[in-house]
Amino acid sequence: MKDKRLQKLGELHRKHKDIITLMPLQTGGLLTEAARQALIEFGDGYSVCDFCSGSLCDITNPPVQEFVHELLPEFLGCEVATITHGAREAKFAIMHSLAKPGDSIIVDSNRHYTTIVAAERVGLNVIEVPSSGYPEFTIDVNEYEPLIEKYHPRMILLTYPDGNYGNIPDARRLGDIAQEHDVPFILNGAYAVGRMPVNMNELGVDFVVGSGHKSMASAGPCGVLGMKKRWEEVVLRKAEAYSNKEVELLGCTLRGVPLITLMASFPYVVERVNHWDEQVLKAQWFSNELEKLGFKQLGEKPHKHDLLHFEAPMLYEISQRVRERGYFLYKELDDRGIWGPQPGLARSFKLSTFAASKEQLSFVVDSFKSILSKYS
Amino acid sequence: MKDKRLQKLGELHRKHKDIITLMPLQTGGLLTEAARQALIEFGDGYSVCDFCSGSLCDITNPPVQEFVHELLPEFLGCEVATITHGAREAKFAIMHSLAKPGDSIIVDSNRHYTTIVAAERVGLNVIEVPSSGYPEFTIDVNEYEPLIEKYHPRMILLTYPDGNYGNIPDARRLGDIAQEHDVPFILNGAYAVGRMPVNMNELGVDFVVGSGHKSMASAGPCGVLGMKKRWEEVVLRKAEAYSNKEVELLGCTLRGVPLITLMASFPYVVERVNHWDEQVLKAQWFSNELEKLGFKQLGEKPHKHDLLHFEAPMLYEISQRVRERGYFLYKELDDRGIWGPQPGLARSFKLSTFAASKEQLSFVVDSFKSILSKYS
Repeated sequence: MKDKRLQKLGELHRKHKDIITLMPLQTGGLLTEAARQALIEFGDGYSVCDFCSGSLCDITNPPVQEFVHELLPEFLGCEVATITHGAREAKFAIMHSLAKPGDSIIVDSNRHYTTIVAAERVGLNVIEVPSSGYPEFTIDVNEYEPLIEKYHPRMILLTYPDGNYGNIPDARRLGDIAQEHDVPFILNGAYAVGRMPVNMNELGVDFVVGSGHKSMASAGPCGVLGMKKRWEEVVLRKAEAYSNKEVELLGCTLRGVPLITLMASFPYVVERVNHWDEQVLKAQWFSNELEKLGFKQLGEKPHKHDLLHFEAPMLYEISQRVRERGYFLYKELDDRGIWGPQPGLARSFKLSTFAASKEQLSFVVDSFKSILSKYS
Repeated sequence: MKDKRLQKLGELHRKHKDIITLMPLQTGGLLTEAARQALIEFGDGYSVCDFCSGSLCDITNPPVQEFVHELLPEFLGCEVATITHGAREAKFAIMHSLAKPGDSIIVDSNRHYTTIVAAERVGLNVIEVPSSGYPEFTIDVNEYEPLIEKYHPRMILLTYPDGNYGNIPDARRLGDIAQEHDVPFILNGAYAVGRMPVNMNELGVDFVVGSGHKSMASAGPCGVLGMKKRWEEVVLRKAEAYSNKEVELLGCTLRGVPLITLMASFPYVVERVNHWDEQVLKAQWFSNELEKLGFKQLGEKPHKHDLLHFEAPMLYEISQRVRERGYFLYKELDDRGIWGPQPGLARSFKLSTFAASKEQLSFVVDSFKSILSKYS
């Protein structure tokens, strides 16, 4: 092969393997051994679809039908569920089905950027509920109410938790407000579903959106979407000419291996959400240890999620005087087998304690200590 | 684990392994060894995005940027390329960007069902160019011209080849017609890109759509989209609030392992399209052999693609008098290590010769012979 660019493609290797992963995007998406086996077993193109007779979600071998129509609704506490390419695609499908251009949507200001982009793709007018600002950035869901009365939105959305601070707003209370005003309520649970218990029915929401690669131990891209029965005819409406093809899903979505990893990891995921209280305690302990070193945790305190945002003024100070600038932190941690803050960031960064054991987190704390003393 | 449904998910196995694959959906999507390695290497959730600084297509490690911005445009003969969840999602993104509800699109009547569903999702009025009908079902692209003059469509689409008969219409001629009438022209190359040479520029089309899992030796779901530079600002327009996020892609699409398999297999795919003439000869030989047994090949003759559609009246006759009905054919072939016709079909079915060697195809011919004589 003469072209070096092609040669490179034949030898793709991942740098971050067998290390302590604190990268918030990745801690909930590490595959189980069962998923790793399934990856290999169903790797080829359309191999999930061997026994498809026209509808992906009705395939019985592998048991997609049972997974989508029974297990997922039980897990999400919803009446109807389906699979999607991810949380953003699910949000778009909901917005595109329910609203028309010019309609309004009210969202929290901690929303993921894809909420805004999906709304723009539909042509929606976005109204944001402000957070309390620095340093906690909490969302008071009661602030949705006057905005609902003022703007008569077609729907509302809450990010639960948000991906910046890991704050968990009062979804239950917003569920009451939504029902009182009869406005459809979307819960973006990309960092919740698969990590912590989320029961749509108990929260009183109309739609819940989850991410396989972010929080359900799956390969990307994949996601789940749960809804109340009343929305099935709207969001999962069938094509005029094809009675088994959903318009918003373009017939089928996850026609390949991410679905298989989602299914293979599911038994583990169902079990792990039962241990959420341990995860929260671990995150609080870690946050406390880093604060002892002079870091400042942003977002809610005590924290209720593994996603943590820290300010580290002394690391920033170091970055200002070393050759590698902000990258020094990435390098120092990488040397110690730790993969966490976005390369280049030192002043403030996000970490997730979800995939690391208490012992590993102790080692991370010690590593930060030794980095600080090395440069002091 | 008490729930048997969950237990099943931990032990997912694929029935169709290490067999002769003639299933048209799958022959172009079998992974290369490099892709299989990359699957394992990058299986975890968002692992492709380790070094993302805000735009998937600009990641340099792994070399997504080089792949998307250099290698793909060279391969497709286009000015701008991107990656998508698949051909259908690419078609929807184009339609959704260019058209508004009520606009018209002219398509060939051999179009894939997803063309119709994507058009319905956008609210388009679809006009179909009829085929010549049984038994060849060819599309005369000259028939687009009067319809363009009558309906002033926002765009036109041609399926190249179609997935039912494997017919290859005269895309070059339609490219001339489209340019003459200044109407954007989408080529659906889901069964072409990655199997045979397709050069967008030479064909005079505005958009070419390809499928990774169907024809580029990739895990599903994934696809490619090539376009003329003039459409970049329309289809790949950036979000108002996020200057590095494409609205129609909702920021990023293939954020996971299908992209890695697409990249890892790409050197092989680039090479294999050079051997397309051998593939065509192999398909013609196979078709001829089956016709000697009394099968009737539908679609163009001599055939110009590996996707073949056969009528087999004598197999149908057998299915009418055996207990398994149409499934007898699936079982008989399965017993011989051959995976091809959709289970349940015996009267007419599709086969693809793309992944099988001449020796394997000889064995398939002999197998059909022995099945016929067994039941005669």
